Amino acid sequence: MKPDKGMIQIYTGDGKGKTTAAIGQAVRAMGRGLSVYMIQFMKGNTEYGELKLLERLSEMKIKQFGRPDFVKPREPEPVDIEMAESALSHAEEILKSGDYDIVILDEACIAAGWGLIRPGELEKILKERAPHVEVILTGRACPPEIMKLGDLVTEMKEIRHYYKKGIPARQGIEY
Amino acid sequence: MKPDKGMIQIYTGDGKGKTTAAIGQAVRAMGRGLSVYMIQFMKGNTEYGELKLLERLSEMKIKQFGRPDFVKPREPEPVDIEMAESALSHAEEILKSGDYDIVILDEACIAAGWGLIRPGELEKILKERAPHVEVILTGRACPPEIMKLGDLVTEMKEIRHYYKKGIPARQGIEY
Repeated sequence: MKPDKGMIQIYTGDGKGKTTAAIGQAVRAMGRGLSVYMIQFMKGNTEYGELKLLERLSEMKIKQFGRPDFVKPREPEPVDIEMAESALSHAEEILKSGDYDIVILDEACIAAGWGLIRPGELEKILKERAPHVEVILTGRACPPEIMKLGDLVTEMKEIRHYYKKGIPARQGIEY
Repeated sequence: MKPDKGMIQIYTGDGKGKTTAAIGQAVRAMGRGLSVYMIQFMKGNTEYGELKLLERLSEMKIKQFGRPDFVKPREPEPVDIEMAESALSHAEEILKSGDYDIVILDEACIAAGWGLIRPGELEKILKERAPHVEVILTGRACPPEIMKLGDLVTEMKEIRHYYKKGIPARQGIEY
């Protein structure tokens, strides 16, 4: 049974668990026969453990728009802006089509928060989506215009992180 | 490359995204060739979308200890306590063996917080695990003894939830 009306879920905040929560949600949905499309903003590195596994699953489609390098906080380069805009217009098309039950816009919050895309543009494509589509947005620094659209908003609050003990990002855990 | 020293990750708080974050972490790890064992406390219902999908993956093992019904908040019945104790002793065995790179103790925080298991007992099995094992604990109401063991703690803080608008739990989304 497919939901009639899709909600907007937002996972934001500084803590670990935003993209993984979106992926876990995708896994749950696919186990119920729903289809999932994940569009990744600001990520252009295929060296993520989750991509290697999810690509084995026929119910899931993933498309990255970004460079392999990290975007400089709040100082995107022109190429970063261009790629984020491409992500946005691809997202618009997918959201309107209604072809996928769940659409994940991974790191879209931060792309809007850091000015790679206009929050108003993101708002527009969310509002104009096919009504049954459930949208999941992730990323820190979510702008208020987007926050208010969330039917569900969870702030992943960092209470403690082992980065601060000098533990580097680990394969299979952080990427 | 397997990590030498496993961390303890805790996902707690009232917001949506704790179990899904653990599942997403499992998916990422399996994409890197790591093995994952998920032990579920207080869950005895196989009607979860994530179980249906994850069981297709050979790198993942899942075992539930609980009744299909929900445990009454802070008022567990004797059978709930018995099942949570069985989960704990199974977890002890798996953690000590070191046979799995990642061990998820889903809802263990709430089982300890609601008094189904003793926080001190949970602390003991975490400390006596094989050193390379990464442990992921989920659940609300995490007791302080457990919180202090977390190398990483994220509080999933509920900012807004569509339950409050009267949206019921939806197949593929909540279960």
